[in-house]
Formats: sequence, structure tokens, C-alpha cells
Amino acid sequence: MRSATTDPRPAGAEASIPEARPPLSSLDPLFRPRSVAVIGASRDLGTVGGSLFHNLLSHNFNGPVYPVNPKSPVVQSVAAYPTIADVPGEVDLALVVVPAARVVEVVEACGRKGVKAVVVISAGFRETGERGARLEQQLVEVVRRHGMRLVGPNCLGVLNTEDVVRLDATFAPIYPPHGKVAFSSQSGALGVAILEYASQLNIGVSHFVSVGNKADVSGNDLLEFWERDPGTGIILLYLESFGNPRRFIPIARRIARHKPIVAVKSGRTRAGQRAASSHTGSIAGADAAVDALCRQSGVIRTDTIEELFDVALVLAHQPVPCGGRVGIVTNAGGPGIMASDACETHGLVVPVLGDPTQEFLRSFLPPEASTRNPVDMIASATPDSFEKASAAVLDDPSVDALLALYVPPIRTGAADVASAIVRGVEEAGRRADADGRPRKPVLSCFLGTHGVPEALAVFQAGRIPSYVFPESAAIALSRAVRYGRWRQTEPGAPVALAVNRVRAANALSHALGRGGAGWLRHDEVAEVLDAYGIRQAPVRLVRDEAEAVREAAAIGFPVVLKLHSDTVLHKSDVGGVALDLRNGAEVSAAWRRMRERLAALGREGEMQGGLVQPLVREGVETILGVSRDPKFGPLVMFGLGGIHVEMLKDVSFRIAPMTDRDARELVREVRAFPLLEGYRGSAPGDVAALEETILRIAQLAEDHSDLAELDLNPVRVLRPGRGVVTLDARIRVGTPGT
Amino acid sequence: MRSATTDPRPAGAEASIPEARPPLSSLDPLFRPRSVAVIGASRDLGTVGGSLFHNLLSHNFNGPVYPVNPKSPVVQSVAAYPTIADVPGEVDLALVVVPAARVVEVVEACGRKGVKAVVVISAGFRETGERGARLEQQLVEVVRRHGMRLVGPNCLGVLNTEDVVRLDATFAPIYPPHGKVAFSSQSGALGVAILEYASQLNIGVSHFVSVGNKADVSGNDLLEFWERDPGTGIILLYLESFGNPRRFIPIARRIARHKPIVAVKSGRTRAGQRAASSHTGSIAGADAAVDALCRQSGVIRTDTIEELFDVALVLAHQPVPCGGRVGIVTNAGGPGIMASDACETHGLVVPVLGDPTQEFLRSFLPPEASTRNPVDMIASATPDSFEKASAAVLDDPSVDALLALYVPPIRTGAADVASAIVRGVEEAGRRADADGRPRKPVLSCFLGTHGVPEALAVFQAGRIPSYVFPESAAIALSRAVRYGRWRQTEPGAPVALAVNRVRAANALSHALGRGGAGWLRHDEVAEVLDAYGIRQAPVRLVRDEAEAVREAAAIGFPVVLKLHSDTVLHKSDVGGVALDLRNGAEVSAAWRRMRERLAALGREGEMQGGLVQPLVREGVETILGVSRDPKFGPLVMFGLGGIHVEMLKDVSFRIAPMTDRDARELVREVRAFPLLEGYRGSAPGDVAALEETILRIAQLAEDHSDLAELDLNPVRVLRPGRGVVTLDARIRVGTPGT
Repeated sequence: MRSATTDPRPAGAEASIPEARPPLSSLDPLFRPRSVAVIGASRDLGTVGGSLFHNLLSHNFNGPVYPVNPKSPVVQSVAAYPTIADVPGEVDLALVVVPAARVVEVVEACGRKGVKAVVVISAGFRETGERGARLEQQLVEVVRRHGMRLVGPNCLGVLNTEDVVRLDATFAPIYPPHGKVAFSSQSGALGVAILEYASQLNIGVSHFVSVGNKADVSGNDLLEFWERDPGTGIILLYLESFGNPRRFIPIARRIARHKPIVAVKSGRTRAGQRAASSHTGSIAGADAAVDALCRQSGVIRTDTIEELFDVALVLAHQPVPCGGRVGIVTNAGGPGIMASDACETHGLVVPVLGDPTQEFLRSFLPPEASTRNPVDMIASATPDSFEKASAAVLDDPSVDALLALYVPPIRTGAADVASAIVRGVEEAGRRADADGRPRKPVLSCFLGTHGVPEALAVFQAGRIPSYVFPESAAIALSRAVRYGRWRQTEPGAPVALAVNRVRAANALSHALGRGGAGWLRHDEVAEVLDAYGIRQAPVRLVRDEAEAVREAAAIGFPVVLKLHSDTVLHKSDVGGVALDLRNGAEVSAAWRRMRERLAALGREGEMQGGLVQPLVREGVETILGVSRDPKFGPLVMFGLGGIHVEMLKDVSFRIAPMTDRDARELVREVRAFPLLEGYRGSAPGDVAALEETILRIAQLAEDHSDLAELDLNPVRVLRPGRGVVTLDARIRVGTPGT
Repeated sequence: MRSATTDPRPAGAEASIPEARPPLSSLDPLFRPRSVAVIGASRDLGTVGGSLFHNLLSHNFNGPVYPVNPKSPVVQSVAAYPTIADVPGEVDLALVVVPAARVVEVVEACGRKGVKAVVVISAGFRETGERGARLEQQLVEVVRRHGMRLVGPNCLGVLNTEDVVRLDATFAPIYPPHGKVAFSSQSGALGVAILEYASQLNIGVSHFVSVGNKADVSGNDLLEFWERDPGTGIILLYLESFGNPRRFIPIARRIARHKPIVAVKSGRTRAGQRAASSHTGSIAGADAAVDALCRQSGVIRTDTIEELFDVALVLAHQPVPCGGRVGIVTNAGGPGIMASDACETHGLVVPVLGDPTQEFLRSFLPPEASTRNPVDMIASATPDSFEKASAAVLDDPSVDALLALYVPPIRTGAADVASAIVRGVEEAGRRADADGRPRKPVLSCFLGTHGVPEALAVFQAGRIPSYVFPESAAIALSRAVRYGRWRQTEPGAPVALAVNRVRAANALSHALGRGGAGWLRHDEVAEVLDAYGIRQAPVRLVRDEAEAVREAAAIGFPVVLKLHSDTVLHKSDVGGVALDLRNGAEVSAAWRRMRERLAALGREGEMQGGLVQPLVREGVETILGVSRDPKFGPLVMFGLGGIHVEMLKDVSFRIAPMTDRDARELVREVRAFPLLEGYRGSAPGDVAALEETILRIAQLAEDHSDLAELDLNPVRVLRPGRGVVTLDARIRVGTPGT
């Protein structure tokens, strides 16, 4: 992974042609080449090399396009050259469409020619197995040696719609309209679908890149390029994998504060679940990490390509909403109800409009109309009603966004109504500007207009997105609202915690030294947690029944007796936890029940002893955990105790390192969070202490790459000011990176 | 509400014209009139009366259409008549498009003329308030008196695409293609959008009815008509309210076993939550009743119109799936991943294909292709590959449905691939027929084909639905699968339970006699539950601390002490429940804590005493309840105890009367159900006894309309064979219907 903000390679060290002007980014020759060569350009439009060359010509690339083809002196009426070396002028960008086996040699020739960027369309590399991977490695070496940038291999190409460039270096049959949306796709096939869909929706695209195998230019490189590109206002990503997720987070977090990033990550359900046996591991699949990554970086994650574009439609053209209160203006009741349903279902609010607004609406609407919200102007509504109502609803301070719905009463008016809404929005916008208030986003829905596209076209000019059904508008708006809230909230910061790193490292390496990998002993766990300031309930290790009774009395009743065993992972599964023992007799009985239960399972030998603890009745039971993903690094889990985690999967994740904001949001994400605020008369919990503990385990995991897994279960969150206390903990070590 | 299966009115009693043949249904004159009059037909196409008349003419209604207009002798080139009485021939159906104030008089004239059905398009009736409602009542009286049927008022009209009829009696600008889909819409405005959308998707419609105010012809009437209509294969409903939900359930349940019913019910979130103060009441909103109704009757409920049509696309043209295992055939990896995600997200399974299938696939696919599932045939796939792969996957016994995905590699082939898939499906279908195996549903998705409609057109002929994105296909298929399972499962039956109805009625009427409405006394509750065989834990009412200690000792420790109060509804909110008291001293302390807590809240006077019960440690805690909806009747609720119901809203509902199947499904619908099966080593519960208890409370609510609310909380479900036991119960009585 390389940064695109500054070219990490010494300028001109390997480039053979002196630069007229220093490039802003090493990706400039890719997006804005002064000249292009197509190596493998073909006369046959039914081939990739033919299609691609045809696209470059027919969309009027603003510079020379040189076909390179050893067999044809002319390709599609353009004089061709046998090799890249024969091309007379300078070549900034070379597109390579030759069989995989010839690619390295061809790219080497490009390097010698002084080409600055190559796009390798050809497939047959890493995606085909070992041999292809070696070929790809050679390709990357050649590219690096010559200081070139490389997109692909195994991709659809690159596209830039800027009028001064007009580069269609793809073999897709679509050239989308120009606009502010930049798109990176990891699937070439989906790239075609994406370009087609964008065109259908009339979504203007700035750049499109099919990244293919991402051998050199990565998603992170593109993000940084688009961050500084004034023509790009919103970035869309279709992802199948992350190259360097830990670098992605800070980059995306920085960019998303001023340019929205919307992403679909496929493989949500098929992502292999790690085979770890503990709670944390068994729940934290790779998709949980992707989700955490998006939450931590402000990336708007959608489930589908359709939603991706629905969100893009509103964020590309409308102001980011300041809140989730929606005003609905309609000329029909049914769609108004459906829109309200959709808004509330997706977390938006449909508030009653203010009295002055309602009064004004009543001044021109018929008595049968409803002015509360939705504003149902009934079938007799004219374009003028739409104009006035749109402006009035936008003016209302109790509303953050407008959703305008129209159903044609007979066979007239969609275009007129569309124009009227645009006028109303503009009026309200001017008033907002004059008062220094932010403008509010407007979405629309023209149902059954037979000419939705016409109305859409009008709207495109006015930059008000139109959706086929109210639900899509509501979903898109709700995602935009969530993004707006993310942007409004102060960015988080790392928290300095007093920890004893060396003490923890010693305990961990001691355990690692025993067998290379495995669970820490009970005392080692205590040592590590203590070094990181994580509070544990006192616990006594006992060897037999009599000792258990003695220690229980010393601690003071009531107590908890737990099975001590290095081999039994889930104690409660084998009856290995006895709570609320109030005297010695109860401790004895519990000890014997435990032993008998294990014996019945044929596992009596696994009982190494017991652990006696005071009973902590107080507080809310939670679970904290860490697992380590080879790519994403430490994944911190939080959930409420018992079935919340295990059965209801009501857990949430963050990737370490974590900020204070990450911790704050993490604990509030689980559905059961109200239990920590004092639900139904029960005491609230010390959430601040819980957040600090979470930051401490994140720090612990970040500091010690040999910590493979950590499981604090349960952690009791006591009353505010009283902190949290860990009642049971397990730690596993392993070789870093495994 | 009247039945459409047999005309409830005496034949010919009021009809003045003798029938040539007895109508199969009283709705026949509505859908298949031999002649139509338009009262209020206009020359102006920009009016409703003009549009409607134009539609009848231009879509070639197969019979005379008489314009009735006192002011114009000719309307749209057809000779007009001043009144309906002046029309020379017989008139089966009259469409009324005159101002509301004149409608009654005009319909009266229709009755005298012998018109058999009227559609009143005009608005200005119940939807506008009191006066309109009275007008509507008059209209219904006229219609009934003359033995006519009435659609509307306040509607878009009626449409029948049968070739021998071709009745477009709507003022919508769309005439959909002919097909098997019947549609009833309660919103005229959405009706236009619906017809437009159906046309865009090329969904063939049999009949469309905009039901308007449903003054006479109801949704239930239409269901029964379509049940027996051989041209209708699937019924779609857009609902804003239910006229008679209790009649809807048995009708829909009967029909849905052979014709799918798909419904959108709007007002999901805005439906007023009843202001009941108890748990059950506060959770059971009207929407829960709608959901229960759909589950009980096999109606496929979708959230949006878009989903409604997506489901219709598959069920109208494809066999009902026998299971949820999907085979995916694709020529690109990305879409294959997205389709797999979508399938698994929506409860479908993407199984590994059988070895013989994979072997066969490998015989003609390149080595880079993947044959497991999705079958990724890579970009080089030909139409022939699609044909062979589609057939082979359909043949595989581990697959219940096929999803075919296509992305054009360059600019060729969608139509060829579509035809190839159709051939493959046909081959597999013939083999299935020959072997007596059921055919399997096939769905497709042509991404970025620039010509989706072309491919769609081919597919329409082959009757394989095509979706824009794989997600819509997966959602539609998953709903079809759920419907298929519903249909495969034995229909439920009522269960005969031994109950003492009179004893319960006495206790309830005793309570009702006290104040007309209110909560039953503790002993009355016990009496009612006992009469219905609902087991309760023994409980002693105690007046003071000393009595509490005495009774606790008599019962045997450990015990539970609860506050006894007629005014405190949620005891745990005021510390009114003390569990696991192990001796007299603990009982005393608990009593005093309870009193002090109430005193601190200034509510000491509300402590009427205490209730002492043995502690039931065993079993899984559940909550059962009944609330009564004025329209839907008794709504039975089930959930697991504690926060499952209150905070996580993990509850489900059924409408009484309930069948054994309803009870079985109800308990399994909640997310926490695994707790009743013995989760993580805990004991399983006596689910059979739980189901029986649910049927008993349903019976109780059904038998006693003065039972307004019932709350059994908690109910412990003991080990299998040991039954369930209710630990606390409340019953409220009220005047029926309030």
C-alpha cells in the first residue's frame, strides 16, 4: 500500500522523461493522461481490445490514442504501431490487453518508454492460483522499478468524465453522465452493472476505477486522490476485500468529515467464521470487523448496490441533513401513509408541523386537506400548491428535510409539479441563505407518472433526487441523517492510560514460553489484567472441598464456587458455576455436585480444583472480549451478559486502537444498553468506568501482539462512581499474525 | 360485509329485469358486464368523466358503452342520453362520476333501470366527515334496496383485462397487460402507481379494483370472487384498514392454500398504540394484530409495493418452492457473492452442489470455473454453458430453486443467454415431469445489460422472472419459500379443551358488577384461571409482617414475598417483589424494605398486604397475555420473561380463536425460543403444556367478551412432562367492544 498524497519514490530517480510540471499525485497520469496507448488494440469490436480502443475514440479522449498491435498497421482507422517503443510521442498511460503471459514483457517495454501509469485489463494473475500470483509479483516488480503506477491486473479499466479529459479506458458499453460521484469497484462485472445503473438513474460520475487485483493502486490510494479532487463530491466503493484495513480507518475517517464515503462490502455472510472456541472468537466473524471499521471511520455502509446509489443520489446533490425530522408533502393520502411508515421504520421522525406553518397551509389548501404532516393536499393540488407547501414546510424549524410525493390525478402535471417544487425549494433556500440557516435536503417521489424519467430530468436540473417509491427515499435519507450526525459529533481522540506494559508482557511471554500458544494460567491472567488497571473480584484457588469451605468462610458468605480447570472452556455448560452459597454446608454440597456432574460426563479428571469468590449481587452483567483478526488486528467486543451475547447476538465491535468516542458509541450500540441506564427501577451502571475498561483492553491488545484472545465474562458494571469488576477472565496467547 | 359466494339477497326479489342465466357471483355484473353506462361521461379528456369514458372506448370494451350526460347529445363521438332511464338497452354496470350531492339520486335511478352493479368514482363521502358519512349511508341503503352491488365511493374504478371483456372502467392512464394477477387497492392514487408499475414490469393483471370507501363490496368479497375465478392465479392487496378482519382470516386461510395472497398494509407505524397501561396492552398495537392475521391466514405480508410485485413476479409464473435451498449460476464472481449474501441474509441456503452435478459441470466448464455453488462459469461462459448449467443445477436434488445471474462480458448475448436458460429450465422441467418430481422455481438477474427489458421480454415468454439486482430476487424467493412451507404444513385445527365457562363468567361478572370495569381481585383471578385449567402456584394472602413470616414457614422456605395492592400495577418498579427468602428473618426484612420503599415514594397507603408463594426456581420464565382490539378481537401475546418482552420487544401475537398450529408457531416465533429447548445445558421446557395454556387463554378470551385484558407474568415453563405454572396474574374486565 502506498500513499497517493506524496509519491514515496524519489522523484525522477527511475523515470526517464523529465516532468514538465510536478504531478500533484502519482495517480494524475492515470486519470488525466496527456496521451494513451492501447497495447492489444484490436479491429474487432467484439473483443476487449477492440471495445476498449473504440470507447477511447468514440468518447473523444482529449489527446492522442495510440493503438499498439504488431499485426495490424491500422486499428479502427488509426495508424497502429508494432510495439510501444515505436510510438512517436510521449505516452502517459498504457492500457494493456494482451494475454497474461506477455503482460510482464509489455509492461517492461512501457517502463523503458517512460510510460507513467499502466492499466492491465488482462486476467490470469493472482485470481487463478499460485502461478498467476508469481506472474503478478513480477509485474509489480517491473512497475515499481520503473516508478510507474498500475491499476489491475484483471480489471475493466478506468474512466474520467471531466470534459477536458473524457477518458473512457474501459471495455464497458456505457459512458455515464459527468458529475461528482467517484466510484471504485473491485468487481469488473459489477462495474458494468454499476455504470449502467448510474446512467439509468442519471447519476453523474467523475471517475470510475475497476481496481481488479489491486496489485499496486489500492482503494486507499484512490481515496486519497479523490479527497483532494475538487470535481469529486462523494466516493462510492464496491469492496470484496480490504487490502489494509488498519490504514483505511484513519484515511476514511479524515475524508468522511467533508466528503461522504458510501460502501458495499460483499461476502457479508460467507466470510469465514473463525474457528476459535471461545465466545468472542465464535461471534466475531470478519464481517463484524467490516462493520466496526465503517462505524469507526464514518463510512456509510449499505447492504446493496441499489441502496448505495439511493444514498448517493441524495448526498451528491443535497445538503447533508442536520437531523432526522421529515416534512412530507403529497397530493394523495395512501402514498403519504406509506412514506410516513417508511420514515419511522428507518428511524426518521415525522413531526407535527408548527402552528404558523399549518395556518399558512390552511390559507390556500381546501378544508379536506391535512396540514399536520404529512401535508395531504388531496387530488386537487395544483403546481402552485406544491410550490407554496414545499417552501413552507422547508421554512418550518421543526423539520430537517422535505419529502415531496406526487401521484398524477388524471393524466397531467408531473413536469409542472416538478418545476413548482424546484421553485418552492429555491425560495426557501434563498430565505435560509439570507438568515444564515443551513439549507435542508429535499427528496421526491413521483409515483405512476408514466413519465417518471421526464420528471426526473427536470429534477436532475434542480438537483432534487427522485425515487420510484417512498421507501427508497426514506432509507436513503435515514442513512444520510446518520452520516450527518456522525459528522456533527466531535471526532474521538486516543486516551492516555496508565498501564504497566512490561509486567503484562512478562506474564504473556511466560505463558507463550510454556507451549508456544494456549491459555494463560489463572494467576497469569490476574497479573496481566492488574498491569492494565482492570479490576478483578478477589478470588481464591482451592484444591479440595475442605479448603473451599475454609476459604469461603474467610472471604465471608455468600460466595460463588467455580470449577477450576484448564481444559473446560465453558464452565456453566458442565454445571461448573454455583452461585449464592450462604454457608459451609452449601459450599460442600456444591463442590460435590460439581464433581458428580463432571464424573457423569466422564470428565472428572479435568477438575483441578475450585475458585472461591465473594458473591457480587450488584451491577449489570456484561461481557468484554478481544479476538485478533490477521488483517484487521484486535477486534474488541462488548455485549450484555448471559443470553444477550450468546443467543441474541446482541454484541458490537470496534477495531483497536480505539478512541474515547469509539468506546462511548460501542456500549450504546447494543440493544440491551438501556439496562445500563437503569431500566425499570433497577440501578444504573457506571458507564464511564465501563468505557475506560474497554479502552484498557483495547490498549492491552494493541500493545501485545501475542495476545490472541481475551474474554472477560462476566464483568459487573456497578453503580455510577463504583466502577466495574471482572468476575472471570481468560487470556490466550499465540504467535503474532496467526 | 356480505358474502360473494352466494348472493345473500333473495334472487329477483327486487331486481326488475329477469336474469337470462343465474350469475355465479353477485360480482359478475361488476367484472363482466354485458353493457356499461357512464353517468357523468364528459367530452373533456382532462376530466375524470372524460378519461374514464375514453378508457372504456379505447380499450375496446366488448359491449355497448352508453354515455349519460344531460348537457351533451354526443360524448366522444358516441350518442349520449340525458339520464340512465333514457338508455335504450339493458345496463349491467353503471359508472357514476357526478358530484357527491347528486350520487344518491343517480344511483336510485340506476336501481329503477335495473342496473346490477354501480361503481361510484365520486369523492365527498365518509372520507370527508359526518355529513359525507350520512350521504354514504343513504347510498348504501339505495343500493341494498335495489339488490345492486356497489364499488366505492371515492375510487379509481374497476378493470378486467380478459379478452372477452376488456373493461377499463378507471380513469388511470394505464392499461396493464393481461395475466393472472388480481389486485385490490384501497388507495386510488396508489392504484395509478400500481398499474403503471405492473406495466413496467410486464406483470399480467386479470382484474384490478380500487375499492375506495368499501361501502358495499369489500376486500373479503373480492377474495371470494377471485378464489373461484380460473383466470386469477395470485391475489395482491394494498390495504389501509380491515373491514372485518375476523372474517378475513378463515377466507384468506382457505384461499391461500391454493392461490397466494400477497398484501401490503400501510399505517404500520402510525397505527395508534392503545393507551392500555399493562404490558400486553402497551406492546400490542394494531400492527401486531395485522401481522398475526397474516401469519394465521397464510397471507404473504410485504413492507412495500415494490416487494409486493417482486413476490408476485415469482409466484405468478413459477412453481411454489418446496424448500429454501438455492442453486446460483453466474458468469461473474462479484454478483455471485452478492447473491449468496442476499440469499443467506434472507433465510435461504446456498448448499454445496452434489458430486454428480459438480462432475458434470466440470466436464464442460474451464478449470478456473467454480462448481460448488454459486456455479461461477467466469466471463467466457456461453449461452450453451448457461443452458447446461441451469438444467444440471435444477436436476440436483440438493437444490429447491435456481437463481441465474448474467453480466455481459463485452456487449453481446443477454437475449441469447436468456433463451438458453429458458431451454435449460425446460429440459430439467421435462425430466422432472417424467420422474414425477415437482418443478422448481427459477429466478434471474441480468445486470448491466443495457437491454434488461429485452431480456425480460424473452423471459416473460418463458415465464422466468428477472430482477434488476440479486437482492430483490432473494427477498422475493425467501417470501415464496416461507409461503410454500406454510402451504406444506398441515392446516391447524381448533382444540377441544375442558373448561368451566360458567364459573369463569360468574367471577368476571362479579368484578364487572363492582364498578363496570377494572381489575379483578386476587381471588377472582384465581377463580377464573382455575375454571380454565390454568395452573397457578399456591399463594397466601397475608395482612402483616408477622402473618407473612408464619405463612412462609407453613409453605416451607425458600419463599417469594410480593406486594399486594390493587393500585400498583408494576410491582417490581416499586421494589414490590422479594425472591428467595430463606428464613423468617429474611421475610421480615423484606416486608420492611417493601414498606419503606413505598413510604419513600409517598405511596405507603397502597400496601394492602403481601402475597407469599413458594420459590419456583425451576423452569423458563415466560409471559402470556391477552388484550382486546375492537376490530380484531382478542389478541394473544407470548414472550419470554423479563427484558425479552419489555425491552427487546421479543414478543409475538395471534388472534383468537386459535388453532393448535397457531399455538405451535406462536411460541417458536420469538427469538428467545431456544431457551425453551434447553440452551447451553439448561433444562428444556414443557413446550406442549405451554402451547395448551396459550390455547386455554385464547379460549377464555374468546368465550368472555367482557374480559378486556389478561396478563400472566411470569409463567414458568417446567421440564417436559411437568407442565407450566403461573406465578402472577392480572385480569381486567370492561364492557365488550370498548
